[in-house]
Amino acid sequence: MSDATEIINRYWSACQARDWKKFSALLAPDLVYELPQTRERIIGRKAYVEFNATFPGDWEVEIVRMLGNHKHAASWNSFEVNGNEHVGVCFFELDENNRISHITDFWPEPYEPPAGREHLTERY
Amino acid sequence: MSDATEIINRYWSACQARDWKKFSALLAPDLVYELPQTRERIIGRKAYVEFNATFPGDWEVEIVRMLGNHKHAASWNSFEVNGNEHVGVCFFELDENNRISHITDFWPEPYEPPAGREHLTERY
Repeated sequence: MSDATEIINRYWSACQARDWKKFSALLAPDLVYELPQTRERIIGRKAYVEFNATFPGDWEVEIVRMLGNHKHAASWNSFEVNGNEHVGVCFFELDENNRISHITDFWPEPYEPPAGREHLTERY
Repeated sequence: MSDATEIINRYWSACQARDWKKFSALLAPDLVYELPQTRERIIGRKAYVEFNATFPGDWEVEIVRMLGNHKHAASWNSFEVNGNEHVGVCFFELDENNRISHITDFWPEPYEPPAGREHLTERY
């Protein structure tokens, strides 16, 4: 295996396919999943698969960009949820058996730009 | 050069040092900087250096994790701004001269977790 991006490609393919058996096989039993924005944590493969399998809404996921090395990867994803686009950014760690052991998940939502920089920026 | 992370390490070091000459030398003249959350865009090295050099507040930046390949990098950073911690996640592209030509910058801010998943999560 060249790097962790191969594993994470399979992770997102299984997720998009709702193939929770394949998805689960990529995870370490003691996986830790963290959402720093809400300070929520899920411990263990079983709870994490349930979290994903029961996630509400009609969602589709695509990888926008992915980078990795031997044991780590980052992926920037586009989620279409009930017709709206959301960005997700995940950082992954693999254990010594190349199973996903740690995921840190960010959901950067839209906000209004602060005043005072309009002379440098355009809006798109 | 092994990969883009070497350039991006120098980018954050120059930024933290407020060494805008070193910082500017890493950027392509036609650099494009985008903030998808506010849909703001800055075009050109000069405006982008000014944006950073005049950014308000007493801030310090540290790299939490960085991943890259030949022409792309992702970095997860911790910013301490006036005593508060903020997370920043940037995706970088280099041009054919290994200058930074495109930056996509995300600022995932805290939010309240949705109801219905308390049986799977703990708070930290």
